Amino acid sequence: MRRGVIFDIDGTLVDTNYLHVVTWWEGFRRQGHDVLMVDIHGAIGRAGKDLVEYLLPEASEEEAEAIKGVHSELYKPHLDEVRPVPGAGELLHTLAGRGMVVVLATSAPKDEADRLIEVTGAREAVSVLVDADDVDKSKPHPEPVRQALEKSGLDPRHTIMVGDSVWDMLAARQAKVGCVALRSGGIDSGSLREAGAEAVYKDCHDLLQHLDESPIARLL
Amino acid sequence: MRRGVIFDIDGTLVDTNYLHVVTWWEGFRRQGHDVLMVDIHGAIGRAGKDLVEYLLPEASEEEAEAIKGVHSELYKPHLDEVRPVPGAGELLHTLAGRGMVVVLATSAPKDEADRLIEVTGAREAVSVLVDADDVDKSKPHPEPVRQALEKSGLDPRHTIMVGDSVWDMLAARQAKVGCVALRSGGIDSGSLREAGAEAVYKDCHDLLQHLDESPIARLL
Repeated sequence: MRRGVIFDIDGTLVDTNYLHVVTWWEGFRRQGHDVLMVDIHGAIGRAGKDLVEYLLPEASEEEAEAIKGVHSELYKPHLDEVRPVPGAGELLHTLAGRGMVVVLATSAPKDEADRLIEVTGAREAVSVLVDADDVDKSKPHPEPVRQALEKSGLDPRHTIMVGDSVWDMLAARQAKVGCVALRSGGIDSGSLREAGAEAVYKDCHDLLQHLDESPIARLL
Repeated sequence: MRRGVIFDIDGTLVDTNYLHVVTWWEGFRRQGHDVLMVDIHGAIGRAGKDLVEYLLPEASEEEAEAIKGVHSELYKPHLDEVRPVPGAGELLHTLAGRGMVVVLATSAPKDEADRLIEVTGAREAVSVLVDADDVDKSKPHPEPVRQALEKSGLDPRHTIMVGDSVWDMLAARQAKVGCVALRSGGIDSGSLREAGAEAVYKDCHDLLQHLDESPIARLL
């Protein structure tokens, strides 16, 4: 019986969310829109196009493209600097070593996801990647999670999703996958539990320390 | 009888916290230290020196200075771009118009505080400013709040503090001043209430909408 864990990447395995926030903010600002940074923070984890539409429903398609362009241009250089969340690589290696299929499901495009996997230092532990290019709809839609299950041959009953955003939790629940949240992306426990997290840990290191009492233990 | 409201500035009146987070992060990174951005976020509102000591107790004085230098160098250019929190100027004007003494108490240095007051567009509503140069100890120590009371001739019983960080709440409570929190700086309601917030609002606009049911109503 195959058992597996599906991980989000941004904010979950690599400490990128705050860099996304300020570069999206700059994109909105340059188009003349004041969007409060905490509101952008709450939208992180959605794919770029959805994020703009969610925060600025009145934006034209052209304007949304311009905002995405600024975000992308300003965010990309940070990919050389970003650091893993504590325990990220160790957690992926430990799960793979204990027979889990490790799957990544991200709203980031493929080249960016690839660089972030490198940052975790655990590329060899990862079996399957589902990125923005693989799906039509992004989280909180369940499609990325369903794609991750399908590509990896996993049954939702024997799979757990680990993420840091309410969008991860909502997508996992809709796909009937259990879910665990990390606070490493800056979203508070209350919001994560309300969105369906069965358990909340500080970061990958904290989850690893408590692995055998965590929801993942039922797969081990 | 004088009655007044003491405001924090960063994250409360001007949307700066996330810019502080990423520029502090860059400071730590350049000195070879990985500090998770969510942990930096939780420390915002402390004065620079205290923030470094809180997050990296092992840093030498030289190293702390280097980190502060990078933060300052990278943060300063953003002062030309930062935007007020929704309703900030209107709230200050309304309170002054209703006879309140409006006081600002910040851990920022004077020149920075001065620029941020300009961003609110409500300089004429502000009676007194207490900045980092006026105090020896910064929030969560009560000294900035006590200085604010003293400089403005306010009695703690007729004063309310409005801030966005747990440090604001802790400082206000120790100075026996009632306190109201805003979520505009990205800190969650639960943490703010736990630190002593009597009420929590989304931002200045939200507080203004609910002013007459808020703790400030008892002063009006």
